[in-house]
Amino acid sequence: MLNLKNEKIPRATITRLALYVQQLEVLEQEGEKVVSSEKLARACGVNPSQIRKDLAYFGEFGVRGVGYYVYELKEAIKKSLGLDRVWNVVLVGVGNLGRALLRHHVLRKRGFVIVGAFDCDPFKIGEEIAGLEVMCSSNLPTKIKELNAEIGIITTPPERAQRAANYLIRGGIKGIVNFAPARIAAPEKVVVEYVDFINHLFSAAFQISLNQSKGFYS
Amino acid sequence: MLNLKNEKIPRATITRLALYVQQLEVLEQEGEKVVSSEKLARACGVNPSQIRKDLAYFGEFGVRGVGYYVYELKEAIKKSLGLDRVWNVVLVGVGNLGRALLRHHVLRKRGFVIVGAFDCDPFKIGEEIAGLEVMCSSNLPTKIKELNAEIGIITTPPERAQRAANYLIRGGIKGIVNFAPARIAAPEKVVVEYVDFINHLFSAAFQISLNQSKGFYS
Repeated sequence: MLNLKNEKIPRATITRLALYVQQLEVLEQEGEKVVSSEKLARACGVNPSQIRKDLAYFGEFGVRGVGYYVYELKEAIKKSLGLDRVWNVVLVGVGNLGRALLRHHVLRKRGFVIVGAFDCDPFKIGEEIAGLEVMCSSNLPTKIKELNAEIGIITTPPERAQRAANYLIRGGIKGIVNFAPARIAAPEKVVVEYVDFINHLFSAAFQISLNQSKGFYS
Repeated sequence: MLNLKNEKIPRATITRLALYVQQLEVLEQEGEKVVSSEKLARACGVNPSQIRKDLAYFGEFGVRGVGYYVYELKEAIKKSLGLDRVWNVVLVGVGNLGRALLRHHVLRKRGFVIVGAFDCDPFKIGEEIAGLEVMCSSNLPTKIKELNAEIGIITTPPERAQRAANYLIRGGIKGIVNFAPARIAAPEKVVVEYVDFINHLFSAAFQISLNQSKGFYS
């Protein structure tokens, strides 16, 4: 049950909320009970008015003149984002990036547990990575139900991304996080997220070019 | 020399422009000379009015009743984003993710050539990955100049990200693309981009929770 005031939260806000959760967890580990919006803002690298605006979506977790209760705010954001539970995830495409994600501790720490690894390469099927035996991608439709997986990560080469997506969709997956540099077609009820890290390099290159044209480095 | 009408291009626009470049390259390979905004929009998964709005930043590359010239538009966007050249990149942190990026063909294809790999682990220094010999991170300040690198990728554990950034900054790096789940401090003239793929999982989980509350899957 979500308790959001408004369901139309902009994407950029979700990204910042995720960042707040991470910083609130750090503060919690440091034993902090209360944090001011100024301190939380500094830790997150955003300005305090932005934080206050973002948290307006979440009702009232702040106390005037005191700040926010660290644990309560963190739990409220997590609950609202659907992060107060564990999500079972399957991964398709056991290449370099797939292996890196399978071995990535942060995913599990954040509540995303990879419960199955799939590939269509017969040389990879049966291999064990991070405690999982790689299975044949064609088994995805039945395995997704067996493993109770709701999210599928695609780390195939771009030309195989749609086929991987089709297997996931046939298995009733609810969301796909696609790391392959390719657009994929999916029914409306299947959430698709694209992780296109090349864009961050593009963006860095673009901003450097702008800085150069302003004479920043001369 | 940038030819942008307006330097304040929103981040979301840069992301879409990068996507247009990728799709225009596909069209070019398929031998297409001209593309309508409708067709380009479909290929990119955005709506045609959005494309026309985005390309308004770039002056006039369209011809009324015909569409856009594929090659000319692609080159104009690339030039404007600073992508009509090669960028030398160094990578710090040769773990699973670092190795995956070092072996990733898409980076080079997009004009980002990793010219140096660095780590502070003595067991990794000297190892050869994707044709590069891993060097000691403390050599970064001198190596960045030698290698003429402008962008640094950080793929260290979060607790070592700031130290990696400090080395990069001391070497005069112009931009940092940080894959480590940690905020880093840098002087204003150093561009910092965060690649936080956990956010995409958060976002997928959040959207699935919303869909569930609407009874999409029942």
